[in-house]
Amino acid sequence: MEIKPGPLLANINTPADLKKLSKDDMLQVCDELRQYIIDVVSIHGGHFAASLGVVELSVALHYVMNTPYDQLVWDVGHQAYGHKILTGRRDQFPTNRKLNGLSGFPKRSESEYDTFGVGHSSTSISAALGMAMASHYKGETDRQHIAIIGDGSMTAGMAFEAMNHAGIEKSNLLIILNDNGISIDPNVGALKEYLTDITTSHTYNKVKDDVWNLLGKLPVGKTFTRGMATKLTEGLKGMVSSSSNLFEALKLRYFGPIDGHNVTKLIETLQDLKDIPGPKILHIKTVKGKGYELAEKDQTKWHAPGLFDKITGEIVKKTFDVPQPPKYQDVFGHTIIELAEKNDKIMGVTPAMPSGSSLKFMMDAMPHRAFDVGICEQHAVTLSAGMATQGMRVFCNIYSSFMQRAYDMVIHDVAIQKLPVIFCLDRGGLVGEDGPTHHGCYDIAYMRCVPNMIVSAPMNEAELRDLMYTAQLESNKLPFSIRYPRGEGVMPEWRTTMKAIEIGTGRKLKDGEAIAILSFGHPGNFAAAAIRDVKKEGINPGHFDMRFAKPIDEAMLHEVCQQYPKLITVEDGTVVGGFGSAVLEFMATHGYKNDVTILGIPDALVEHGTPKQLYDQIGIDANGIANTLRKVAQKQVMIA
Amino acid sequence: MEIKPGPLLANINTPADLKKLSKDDMLQVCDELRQYIIDVVSIHGGHFAASLGVVELSVALHYVMNTPYDQLVWDVGHQAYGHKILTGRRDQFPTNRKLNGLSGFPKRSESEYDTFGVGHSSTSISAALGMAMASHYKGETDRQHIAIIGDGSMTAGMAFEAMNHAGIEKSNLLIILNDNGISIDPNVGALKEYLTDITTSHTYNKVKDDVWNLLGKLPVGKTFTRGMATKLTEGLKGMVSSSSNLFEALKLRYFGPIDGHNVTKLIETLQDLKDIPGPKILHIKTVKGKGYELAEKDQTKWHAPGLFDKITGEIVKKTFDVPQPPKYQDVFGHTIIELAEKNDKIMGVTPAMPSGSSLKFMMDAMPHRAFDVGICEQHAVTLSAGMATQGMRVFCNIYSSFMQRAYDMVIHDVAIQKLPVIFCLDRGGLVGEDGPTHHGCYDIAYMRCVPNMIVSAPMNEAELRDLMYTAQLESNKLPFSIRYPRGEGVMPEWRTTMKAIEIGTGRKLKDGEAIAILSFGHPGNFAAAAIRDVKKEGINPGHFDMRFAKPIDEAMLHEVCQQYPKLITVEDGTVVGGFGSAVLEFMATHGYKNDVTILGIPDALVEHGTPKQLYDQIGIDANGIANTLRKVAQKQVMIA
Repeated sequence: MEIKPGPLLANINTPADLKKLSKDDMLQVCDELRQYIIDVVSIHGGHFAASLGVVELSVALHYVMNTPYDQLVWDVGHQAYGHKILTGRRDQFPTNRKLNGLSGFPKRSESEYDTFGVGHSSTSISAALGMAMASHYKGETDRQHIAIIGDGSMTAGMAFEAMNHAGIEKSNLLIILNDNGISIDPNVGALKEYLTDITTSHTYNKVKDDVWNLLGKLPVGKTFTRGMATKLTEGLKGMVSSSSNLFEALKLRYFGPIDGHNVTKLIETLQDLKDIPGPKILHIKTVKGKGYELAEKDQTKWHAPGLFDKITGEIVKKTFDVPQPPKYQDVFGHTIIELAEKNDKIMGVTPAMPSGSSLKFMMDAMPHRAFDVGICEQHAVTLSAGMATQGMRVFCNIYSSFMQRAYDMVIHDVAIQKLPVIFCLDRGGLVGEDGPTHHGCYDIAYMRCVPNMIVSAPMNEAELRDLMYTAQLESNKLPFSIRYPRGEGVMPEWRTTMKAIEIGTGRKLKDGEAIAILSFGHPGNFAAAAIRDVKKEGINPGHFDMRFAKPIDEAMLHEVCQQYPKLITVEDGTVVGGFGSAVLEFMATHGYKNDVTILGIPDALVEHGTPKQLYDQIGIDANGIANTLRKVAQKQVMIA
Repeated sequence: MEIKPGPLLANINTPADLKKLSKDDMLQVCDELRQYIIDVVSIHGGHFAASLGVVELSVALHYVMNTPYDQLVWDVGHQAYGHKILTGRRDQFPTNRKLNGLSGFPKRSESEYDTFGVGHSSTSISAALGMAMASHYKGETDRQHIAIIGDGSMTAGMAFEAMNHAGIEKSNLLIILNDNGISIDPNVGALKEYLTDITTSHTYNKVKDDVWNLLGKLPVGKTFTRGMATKLTEGLKGMVSSSSNLFEALKLRYFGPIDGHNVTKLIETLQDLKDIPGPKILHIKTVKGKGYELAEKDQTKWHAPGLFDKITGEIVKKTFDVPQPPKYQDVFGHTIIELAEKNDKIMGVTPAMPSGSSLKFMMDAMPHRAFDVGICEQHAVTLSAGMATQGMRVFCNIYSSFMQRAYDMVIHDVAIQKLPVIFCLDRGGLVGEDGPTHHGCYDIAYMRCVPNMIVSAPMNEAELRDLMYTAQLESNKLPFSIRYPRGEGVMPEWRTTMKAIEIGTGRKLKDGEAIAILSFGHPGNFAAAAIRDVKKEGINPGHFDMRFAKPIDEAMLHEVCQQYPKLITVEDGTVVGGFGSAVLEFMATHGYKNDVTILGIPDALVEHGTPKQLYDQIGIDANGIANTLRKVAQKQVMIA
């Protein structure tokens, strides 16, 4: 089905085409752009509500600024669909997030208009400031550098670090604070309340003017002397200059708040701001999902709804004849409640991912024991450590790629102190359409090298539950990480009775001959399928679900190394320094010389696509593992 | 030489003893505590000026609060000497930072008064909030939780993340902002200026009161109507409530600033604050080095001066008959200027370590091209990435253990985008007296697993210069990390002519028989010494300075694996997933079966001590490597 853009949009191939139109035309361009996003996303999927919220801003920016010479940095970037459509990618937009298609985020290799690749939040101010300082150094004084950042992203410390620096640099930086009160879930924290305050009073700049005007009219006389008037005026000046607002405290000139859906006002404001040098912030108010009523009403659901009927708003759901396995996320979400009902020391922490992690279930059921702390991975980990010092058993649930943000806290605050914080590393492995910024490739490697850290991964729902159960027992004295992938597991009947797993032990799934597969986590299922596939070819490998990359099951490895000349390790993490390397290190220590093939995510960027396509690409789906089994079966190897 | 504490201090073995004294006695206790710190540190070394600055605060806190039930979290912690002395560790204090002695930082395993281990900055608010939330959950409503944090530490984003969360929690949290305007080097950024503003105007709270008082006296009449008066009052209320000060914007009740050297005032204030529930911040002004005049005057020098004559202030310097090798830091600092003089694209970035990294040389020589961005590792890396998009060649110098803070930015903003940022990872390996929080153990492992990343380490000064030279060449298109240790290299004549090194190549230092040593970085010198030691015993290993852990020199490894049945790898990084594992991975890929012994930092915490003691302990000094050579020489191994 062909989707046709509106008549104005159909002729906008670059921002230069946009600039040929009149300011009044921009209303229609906005309408057409919004409709085009609805048309395409409803059929092809993708992030939805965020881009609808910045249609007017996207149009105004490209209308006023001299892009790509002027540089736009979109924070997170899933709101940049309008930007992409206006900058030469209109007709490719239906390939968005598909294998070999457009990225769902700005990406430098895709377009010169995409000045900085994004995906994780809160990087935009630092990046734009870096560009601005480079321009300043080069003497490009007319060049604009603009970071567009949501109020949710503002809660991450990195944004604050960048503002603290920006305030003292004289470079041309404009921060546009896109204030819509929501990330994927509603924003939390004092900053959100503050932004509501200054918006509600709606007066900050106006009152400032009014007050100065009125002060000029104060009648000086007997009761109110000139001295008192001076004192009052000076006092007020002191208050305003020393306190002003939060952003002015950080030496950024603050403008706004203005209505981010009034494209005319946006255009005029941006034109004015172009002429004001130095660091400044424009606060705009927008509505996530603007223009699509259902999305405005349930913004979390419509963040990335999947395919839907754009007329009725019905979201397409797959139906099945038989019960399907649940998502690992939901198993986590239900299981933590089951555990917390019995163990009153259990708490839950998520940095802004209550829906994505399903910690939301516990936040609803036990609001005093489960917390969303905002997009603050660093704080989330050390907060959990602080709780752990008081005997709490904290499940700190963070996506694998986001945990990269809190790596120092994992080492410095948790592992060095041997605090038994439980890290649930969600989105381990390839996540699919979100691509390289979101793939959970590195956690096995970066966790494994940390002393005191237990590194585990369940092969299925029952193991996830057992690992969660084990981690929260008083007998566990160490930090305990449990990593699992995005999406469905393999057990429709997943509500198993939980039992303790001895830490550092794997389980033998089957005996075999010549070859042993050692798998870590969910890809064990791909390995099992591969083993079934090659059976008829006379290949009969043993299979061991190792469960722990650290401490690794040395007894099992001794047995395996003595029995099988050829080993294949399988994991959905990088092949550099990961689970496979743990096996090699064991072998080096003990002098084993088995032939080892390491399967995992290669040491290269894996782009976006469906998980199925990507696992096929890197050869660790059932088919890929079966092919490796065939190759390895051909090898002539002796046990040394 | 015995150091005697003053008469009051001599009888304070726990805070209970302190509480037996009168409030007036606290003046003398402060004097004695300050003198004791001067006496001990001048002879035994350690951090100095920071603890002098919080003598009064340490005394007041333990006098007023019910420690350890009330919980103190000292940010960074090198200012906690007074706290340690008052909490049962007076007589052990001369063992501070020595092997098996007291830690230079608070440490949970050392004392129940040390509620949270620290070392890196800006963790205290998160940790104390976690404790406070746990207490709130348990119903311990009388319990106090106090984070003591410097204004420098406040610039790190993590502190902001924690404040954003603290403001909406009802738990008992007191943040004491110890504002002295300096970290190790003077603080930078907008926040510093803001704190100066509110302190200088000295008026925030007072003016607020004055203004309200005066407003009540406004004469209403013809010129100034009741309507105008109402409008003015309401307007001002709006301004004050919506803006107030930066901390109140974050929903923290703000008190201060008060003089942090007035112990009486501190005691009274803390007593008052005890009774105010909820999150609050007390701003105190202190002078780093207070009470030791030279330290007050040159705070950077006296941060950790080494041993000194406490009367004359003369700092003990070692003298030598022959020229000594320079510190790697100074080689970096001079070399970047040499390079920048020829390449105008070079810039330098440091997060608050201008002196420690010696980037200060460039900041002085080229102030527009070298920047201290504050304690903001995350921002430092992404700022560098932003500059790199504009063609700049940025040397971003961050200590190995601090780079853990910016791990996501290394992956997400630099490596995924293939931006050729140059990371100089200072303090790689064991740093010595600062202990486990500061040892640079993990960077080889955590960098090696990142795609596109070049991971290198020089064996000496000339190689450091050559690697820096190579990294800044236009021909290098990838992120390039160069790690080197704290302290002296090996080449008194270090100003060598720089030349390009082919990326991913090592160099053969010597041929040998049966055993090859593959070393990475500075410990290659220990290996060379070990080889000299065992020569007379007839052991004659080959030695290869690999220079790159990634890409690793495959041609060289093929040669080595074919020629030497036994390999020993040597690195000053973790043995888990590090350089040694890179060799194992190469061997697994190519089917080599050589015997491999991996030497490095074991997978356990290495405590504090001198680097020499610690390298001896873990067996990678010359003696340890020689012993390994002897053992390996005994092994009977065949090339497969």
